[in-house]
Amino acid sequence: MTSTYERFIEKWRTIHNLREVQELVDWDQQVMMPPLGTEQKGFQQAALAGVVHSMLTDPEMGELIEELSLRGDLDLYQRANLREAKREWEKETKIPARLVEERARAVALAQGSWLEARKNNDFSAFAPFLEKVVAITREMAEAVGGGNPYDVLIDDFEPGMTENVLKEVFSTLKGRLVELNDKIKGGSHPPTQEPVTRFFPRERQEALCVFLAKEMGYDFNAGRLDVSAHPFTSGTGRDVRITTRYDERFLNTALFGVMHEVGHALYEQGLDPDRYRDPSGQACSLGIHESQSRLWENLIGRSRAFWVHYYPELKRFFPGVLDDVDLDTFYGAINVSRPSLIRVEADEATYNLHIIMRFEIESDLMAGRLKVGDLPAAWNAKSRELLGIEPEEDANGVLQDVHWSAGLIGYFPTYALGNLFSAQFMEAARRDLPDIEERLEKGDLISLRKWLGENIHFYGRLYLAEDLCEKVTGKKPSGDALMSSLEGKYSEIYGF
Amino acid sequence: MTSTYERFIEKWRTIHNLREVQELVDWDQQVMMPPLGTEQKGFQQAALAGVVHSMLTDPEMGELIEELSLRGDLDLYQRANLREAKREWEKETKIPARLVEERARAVALAQGSWLEARKNNDFSAFAPFLEKVVAITREMAEAVGGGNPYDVLIDDFEPGMTENVLKEVFSTLKGRLVELNDKIKGGSHPPTQEPVTRFFPRERQEALCVFLAKEMGYDFNAGRLDVSAHPFTSGTGRDVRITTRYDERFLNTALFGVMHEVGHALYEQGLDPDRYRDPSGQACSLGIHESQSRLWENLIGRSRAFWVHYYPELKRFFPGVLDDVDLDTFYGAINVSRPSLIRVEADEATYNLHIIMRFEIESDLMAGRLKVGDLPAAWNAKSRELLGIEPEEDANGVLQDVHWSAGLIGYFPTYALGNLFSAQFMEAARRDLPDIEERLEKGDLISLRKWLGENIHFYGRLYLAEDLCEKVTGKKPSGDALMSSLEGKYSEIYGF
Repeated sequence: MTSTYERFIEKWRTIHNLREVQELVDWDQQVMMPPLGTEQKGFQQAALAGVVHSMLTDPEMGELIEELSLRGDLDLYQRANLREAKREWEKETKIPARLVEERARAVALAQGSWLEARKNNDFSAFAPFLEKVVAITREMAEAVGGGNPYDVLIDDFEPGMTENVLKEVFSTLKGRLVELNDKIKGGSHPPTQEPVTRFFPRERQEALCVFLAKEMGYDFNAGRLDVSAHPFTSGTGRDVRITTRYDERFLNTALFGVMHEVGHALYEQGLDPDRYRDPSGQACSLGIHESQSRLWENLIGRSRAFWVHYYPELKRFFPGVLDDVDLDTFYGAINVSRPSLIRVEADEATYNLHIIMRFEIESDLMAGRLKVGDLPAAWNAKSRELLGIEPEEDANGVLQDVHWSAGLIGYFPTYALGNLFSAQFMEAARRDLPDIEERLEKGDLISLRKWLGENIHFYGRLYLAEDLCEKVTGKKPSGDALMSSLEGKYSEIYGF
Repeated sequence: MTSTYERFIEKWRTIHNLREVQELVDWDQQVMMPPLGTEQKGFQQAALAGVVHSMLTDPEMGELIEELSLRGDLDLYQRANLREAKREWEKETKIPARLVEERARAVALAQGSWLEARKNNDFSAFAPFLEKVVAITREMAEAVGGGNPYDVLIDDFEPGMTENVLKEVFSTLKGRLVELNDKIKGGSHPPTQEPVTRFFPRERQEALCVFLAKEMGYDFNAGRLDVSAHPFTSGTGRDVRITTRYDERFLNTALFGVMHEVGHALYEQGLDPDRYRDPSGQACSLGIHESQSRLWENLIGRSRAFWVHYYPELKRFFPGVLDDVDLDTFYGAINVSRPSLIRVEADEATYNLHIIMRFEIESDLMAGRLKVGDLPAAWNAKSRELLGIEPEEDANGVLQDVHWSAGLIGYFPTYALGNLFSAQFMEAARRDLPDIEERLEKGDLISLRKWLGENIHFYGRLYLAEDLCEKVTGKKPSGDALMSSLEGKYSEIYGF
C-alpha cells in the first residue's frame, strides 16, 4: 500500500475522531450540562464544526481523492472508503461557505421562531422563517447539483436513495396501510391499553430496562444509560450511550424506548472494530439504522413470542401490579392501534402514514408545487385523507415536528424506510434461522443479535442501503414484508 | 479598533473554545466514560491536540502578533491579551513538532512504566524511562531558550516566576516550617483525630457538601458535583464542574476536598464574563488557582471562626454521631498534624515541606547536579532532613507522584505558592474587611467570596501572579503571612 492511501485514510480517521467529539459535546448538552452552559456549548460546537469543515475542504483532501480515483489497485474496502469520502467531500466543497453560514443563521432563527409559533399556535409567524430555510436548502441542493434537488437532500441521510424509488414504494404502502387501518377500526375484539397505564415505579422500570438491554446483548462496559428529555443514542464502537425517559403511568415509554435505543446501540457496538473510524466502516444510512431500532422495538418487543419468555420476567419487576393480566391481554395492551395526530406517539400500524404524509408534502414543497403559506391546509387535508382525522390546531399539526425548522428536509422518509427494512430483515432472519420463533420463546435474543451482527452491523457502509438490503434479503426495498407482518399481527389481535 | 486585532482575538477565542472541549473530553473520561472507551478517548484527545497545535502555529498567527506588537494604540486589556498570546505562541512555534511527538511517546511509556514500578516497588525499572522524559523536557526548554531551562519549565505553570525567586522564598520558609514542626511534636496538648474517623454515611456527606458549596456561593446552575477517583475542577465561565470522593470512615476526604474544589470553581465562575475566552481573561496561574482552593480549604474550612457557625449545621447532617464532641475538640480533630510520607495526605503544617523537597530535587536534576539514578537516595535524605522520617520503600517515596513521569517538571512549586498566596490574600482581606472574623462566625461566607471576586477573580490574567499579589497585598510573595497563620493556629491547638 502506498502512502497516498495511508495519508487519505489517516485524515478521515481524524475527522471521525472529531465527529465523535461533536457527538460527545451534544450528548453532554442533552444529558449532563448545567442549565447556564448553553451559550458556551454553542461556541464549542461552532469551533468544532469550523475545524471539521476546513479539514474536509482542505485542498490536499481533493488531491488525495483525485489521485486515488485514478488507481486500479484498491481493494473492496479501500474502494468503498474512497466512494464514501468522495461523496462527502464533493458536497462539502461544492457548497460555498457563505451559504453554510447563511443556513446556520436561518436555522437558528427558524428554530427559535418554531418554538414560539408552536406555543402560540401561530403558523403565520413562523412561515417567513421557514420560507428562508426552504429557499437556502434548495439553493444548497442546487449548488451540489445533479438534477432533482430533493434527491440531493435525501442522499444526505440515505445515500443512494431517490425520490422516485420512494414514491413508488410509498404509494403501494399507503394504499395497503389505509386499508389495514380501516380493518383495525372494524375489528371484532379490540384490546385495551389499561394494563400498561397502571403505576410502574420509576426505579423498577429502570431495573427492567437495564435487564432487557443486557439480555439483548448491549454491553454496559462499552456504554451507559441516562435520562434525557428526548431519548437518543450517541457514540460508536466501544462507547455507545443511550438515553430514555420514564413515565410512571405508562409502561411503554421507557420499555419500548429503551428497546428502540438498544437496537441503535447494538448496531454501533457491532460495527467492525478495525473499520469503524473509516468512511465505509460506519453505519450504512439512517434508514438502516432505524431498521435496527424498529426491529427490536416492534418486531421483537411487540411480538407474542418475545413475551412468552419475558412477560413472567417483567411481572417480577412489578410485584402484584399485573397479577390479573394474562399474556394475551398484555400482548394486546402493547399493540393497541388508533389513528392519532402526533407522529412520535403513533403506533406500528399508523406510524408510516405520518411519514408518507410528510414525504408527499416535502416533495411538493421542493418541486415548487406547494408554497410554505399553504402548508397548514395541505397538512390538514393529508391528515384527513390518510389518518381520517384532522388537527384542530396547527400546534398539533404542521407545527408538531422540529425537522423542517432545522433544515432537515429529506430526513422523514428514513423513518418509514427503517420500518420497511426491519420487516425485510426479519423475514430473512426467519429464512436463515427457521427455529427463531422457538428461540425467542425461550428468551434467546442472542441468536438474532448475532445474525444481525454478521449480516448487517459488521458491514458498516461497505454497501449502499439498497444494495445491502438486496444482499441480505434477496429483494429490493418494498413494503411487502412490512405489510404482511402488520396484517398478520393485527388481524389476530383485533379479529378481522 | 481595526480588524487586525479582531481577527487576532477571534482566533484565540476559537482556541479557547476548543480547549473547553479538551477539558470536557477529559472530564468525561474521568467521570462518565464506560470502561472500554479509553482507546477512543485517546484518539479524540490526539485529534483535538493536533487541531489546537496547528491553530497556534498557523503562520497567520505569527503575522498578527508581529503586526500588533508594533502598534501603540492598544488598551490595557488588549496589551495583556497580546502579551499572553505571544508567550504561548513563541513556545509553541519554537518547539519542533518532532520533539512534541517524541515527548508524547516518552511520556506515554514512562507513565505505564511508573504505574508498574510503583506497584512492584522497583525504581530501577522506571529509571531509563524517566531519564528519557527528563532529557526531552530539557531539550524542549532549550529549544524555547532564554537561559535557565528550569525557569522555562516553571513559566509554563506560573508565568513570570523564576527558580531564583522560588529559591529565596522557599529557603526561608523551609527553616521556619522545620522549626514549627518540632514545636508541634513537643506540644503540650495534642488533639485527637478520632471524631472525624467515625461513621459518616455517604448520602449525608453528599448533602453536606452540596450545602456548603452553596453557602460558599458556588452556582449549581453553572456547575455540577460528581464522583471521580481523583477530585478535580473542570471548565470555566458558566460551566464549572467539580468532583470529589467519599470515605465513610473519614469525614475530611469529601468535606475538605469539596471546599478545595469549590475554591477553584469560584475562581472560574468569577472570571470576567466578557473576557474569560481571551488570553488575559483566564485564570492567572496555577499558583493563584491553588491559592483559591487552599484559602477555602485551610484558611476558612480549618478555621475556628468558620465552625462557630457551621459546626452545629454539620451535626444536623449526622444526627447523634458527634453529640459528645464539642467545637474545640472538633476543631482540633480537623487540624491534627504529623509528618507523613505521602504528599496528598499531608496536613497544613507539613505539606509545604513535601513541595520544597521536590523543588530542590527538580532544581538539582535540571541543573545536572543530580542524576535520575540517584533520585531515590536524594529523596530519602531530603525526607529525613525535612520531615524527620524516611520511606521504607520507593513506592511510598520517590515513586509516589505521577508528575515527573508525565513530564510535569516545574509544576510542584505552584502547590506551595498557592499556600503562600492564600495566606497573603487572607491577610489583605482582613485588612479590607476588619470584621471578617465576626462575619465568618455568623456564617457569612459571601463577603469573602465577593472580596476575592473583586480583587482576584475578575482580573483573570491581566497581571502576572507576582504583580497581582503585590497589587492586592502590597507585598511581594513571601512565606511570612503563611508562617504567622500556621504558627498562630498550631501554637493554640497544640499548646506551645
